[in-house]
Amino acid sequence: MSPAQGRSRAGAGPGPGPGRGGRPGRGGRPGHDLESILRTAVRLFTERGYDATSMEDLSRALGITKSAIYHHVSSKEELLRLATGRALDGLFSAAAAVEALPGRAIDRLERLVRDSVAVLVAELPFVTLLLRVHGNTAAEREALARRRAFDQFTASLVKQAVADGDLRPDIDPVMTAKLLFGMVSSAAEWYRPERGGGSGPGGGGSGPGGGALAEAICKLAFEGLRT
Amino acid sequence: MSPAQGRSRAGAGPGPGPGRGGRPGRGGRPGHDLESILRTAVRLFTERGYDATSMEDLSRALGITKSAIYHHVSSKEELLRLATGRALDGLFSAAAAVEALPGRAIDRLERLVRDSVAVLVAELPFVTLLLRVHGNTAAEREALARRRAFDQFTASLVKQAVADGDLRPDIDPVMTAKLLFGMVSSAAEWYRPERGGGSGPGGGGSGPGGGALAEAICKLAFEGLRT
Repeated sequence: MSPAQGRSRAGAGPGPGPGRGGRPGRGGRPGHDLESILRTAVRLFTERGYDATSMEDLSRALGITKSAIYHHVSSKEELLRLATGRALDGLFSAAAAVEALPGRAIDRLERLVRDSVAVLVAELPFVTLLLRVHGNTAAEREALARRRAFDQFTASLVKQAVADGDLRPDIDPVMTAKLLFGMVSSAAEWYRPERGGGSGPGGGGSGPGGGALAEAICKLAFEGLRT
Repeated sequence: MSPAQGRSRAGAGPGPGPGRGGRPGRGGRPGHDLESILRTAVRLFTERGYDATSMEDLSRALGITKSAIYHHVSSKEELLRLATGRALDGLFSAAAAVEALPGRAIDRLERLVRDSVAVLVAELPFVTLLLRVHGNTAAEREALARRRAFDQFTASLVKQAVADGDLRPDIDPVMTAKLLFGMVSSAAEWYRPERGGGSGPGGGGSGPGGGALAEAICKLAFEGLRT
């Protein structure tokens, strides 16, 4: 994975740390720093679609003027870039950590699945938005290019694990990688950490960071459902 | 599964047969029967989002007037209802066929996975749109309600297979069902039947109806990836 692929071109921070406008009270009213603007934008983009959401809609939802928003970001597209960057930076951090690990590819692959679930759970609104982005603007195309780079990295791990004799060779490795991480991604549609417990419908987070969800995915994918 | 859940409330036909306006040349220009209007609408809804697509956009994309479109459908929402109905009717037909089968729940579950992949492949644009629908209008809420009924049916099959001792009991059955069909659904994002061949990136349809894709999903999910 090249550094250019691994780093956000939008310069989005790796998490909710003190970035530009991240200090409460800078500019708009208290509680309307960049982080809260971003979270509301992500909610609207996810509910209505990015194209269908205007800065006017965002201003109404936040109860602040458009110029108060423009104090923090230059455009709607910058909000999209920051939001998808949050999810992608998490996934690329996980990939970089796994790349640096010693040991067999299959173990690194399983670790990447677990860490990707943790990113999904920690950054759920951002990951959900990322998965609904389909490439109409430059920011969306950049996000899709980084998703493809992540897919290529996961496929390379699968190929290595097949070459090691640890993964079944009768499924195309690219397809295996897509199905495995497609299953992880699909959880963004129903996983809700606040419900807790692995036994209720729609639940799955009996431990912090979606431990039960990661466990279920790894058992299903690596060991199989059949007894 | 109740008949009310299994049947489309919108009265959408089960497939591309001769429905209302299905005869070429009725109303608009040749090639602009209901089926072609529907396919263009589905492409636009999927590319831009349902909310962001206007009947004006559709009229421009088709090169016909809005009144020529209204000759075939009463509203944008009717198009959405017909489109999601096409995907859901396919899935519910598969569920009904599986429900009628004798034998063990695990075999019916595996058959449902295979038949769902076949529906995904046969009705790819409609399934893709269905998966992007998130409940802002009555038609979207109806589609989501039918998706939930399908999920409940699949979860009931998983529960039965666990009770039979055929599926591992250490994953919550609802989660198993969600992950299994989440994996199937995720293929809508990358599966392209026209590329053919199971070995190329993004491919997967070496046989008709996505046979290689269904095979890969069933091996991964039921037998597991580990050698």
